[in-house]
Amino acid sequence: MTPKGEAARQEILDEAMRIASVEGLEGLSLGPLAKRLGRSKSGLFAHFESKEQLQIEVLEQAADKMTTEVVLPAIAQPRGLPRVEALFDGWCRWASQSAALPGGCIFVSAATELDDHPGPVRDVLVKNQRLWLDTLRRSFEIAKEEGHLTSTTDAEQLAFETYSLMLGSYHYYKLLGDPRTLKRAKTGFARLVADHRTPV
Amino acid sequence: MTPKGEAARQEILDEAMRIASVEGLEGLSLGPLAKRLGRSKSGLFAHFESKEQLQIEVLEQAADKMTTEVVLPAIAQPRGLPRVEALFDGWCRWASQSAALPGGCIFVSAATELDDHPGPVRDVLVKNQRLWLDTLRRSFEIAKEEGHLTSTTDAEQLAFETYSLMLGSYHYYKLLGDPRTLKRAKTGFARLVADHRTPV
Repeated sequence: MTPKGEAARQEILDEAMRIASVEGLEGLSLGPLAKRLGRSKSGLFAHFESKEQLQIEVLEQAADKMTTEVVLPAIAQPRGLPRVEALFDGWCRWASQSAALPGGCIFVSAATELDDHPGPVRDVLVKNQRLWLDTLRRSFEIAKEEGHLTSTTDAEQLAFETYSLMLGSYHYYKLLGDPRTLKRAKTGFARLVADHRTPV
Repeated sequence: MTPKGEAARQEILDEAMRIASVEGLEGLSLGPLAKRLGRSKSGLFAHFESKEQLQIEVLEQAADKMTTEVVLPAIAQPRGLPRVEALFDGWCRWASQSAALPGGCIFVSAATELDDHPGPVRDVLVKNQRLWLDTLRRSFEIAKEEGHLTSTTDAEQLAFETYSLMLGSYHYYKLLGDPRTLKRAKTGFARLVADHRTPV
């Protein structure tokens, strides 16, 4: 693809991601999207051959962004609790970036939207959710190996509870608009870590 | 309304609730619903004048059911921790009843569906979510009053974390199909209570 073609494609995906964060992936239609971008519908079809393909690429793009903005900076931190905490803090920043994701974390809305709708779009979502949970679980495992968390810590349970705080805070904030939501999630996460920390 | 009219209305609402739990509230259309029930569309309109009214009544009906099946049995328990635990256990049963709610808890799917869509349906959802969070918070407050939880316990934080475990387990189970999900939620809840329990 030419650099110009790549830039156009990126512009379409960025706008599609903003729309999907508010309207859901079902809300992505090539016609209205073309209109918002001042492009022809056939011009859009040159980049994405179907709504389904666009939905999949939006999810993949969001996953790439989350890797760049959350996972890679965390991996640059020392192994163990610093890395665990960087992952959580990174997610908090990710979830509250209103420019790129005006409707909040795209994976959470997609999760509810797609849970009962088998197909290739759901498969991509599930693959990415598994990767994210695995990243969380692995970071807790490493914190055990480093001796920061006790040897009896169930890393999968901690990944589950961290994921729950993320999904809980998303819904709590979106529905109730409580500005203390993120602080509540951080309090819950701090208690989770403290309960499994190796005594000094 | 005649008893026959009331029974018909109830039958429509029950089927609408099952559909909404899978397809979301947006998936409720009077035409297809009439077809599934073997009724005429005009017959349905005699009971519900619009899709929006049907959506609102489905949410109200679900809230009534949840009060009957979860909240009232919990209130029959002794004040304090027994009541707190009965509320959580009741929710676990509620969320896993596949006959009435084949797609899982209707409030969770509605939460993501409606979060960015202001209007009367969202208002009803928010009212019911506030009531539920308030029931949780109040049950933790009573457990403090009874001396079961320490006097420094932040009941609102505990309600938030309980709500997070519920939403987290819903998504975790629906996407990953992990049969240990409910056990994980119970483990998280037990740790939450244990961390705030008054030392004996």
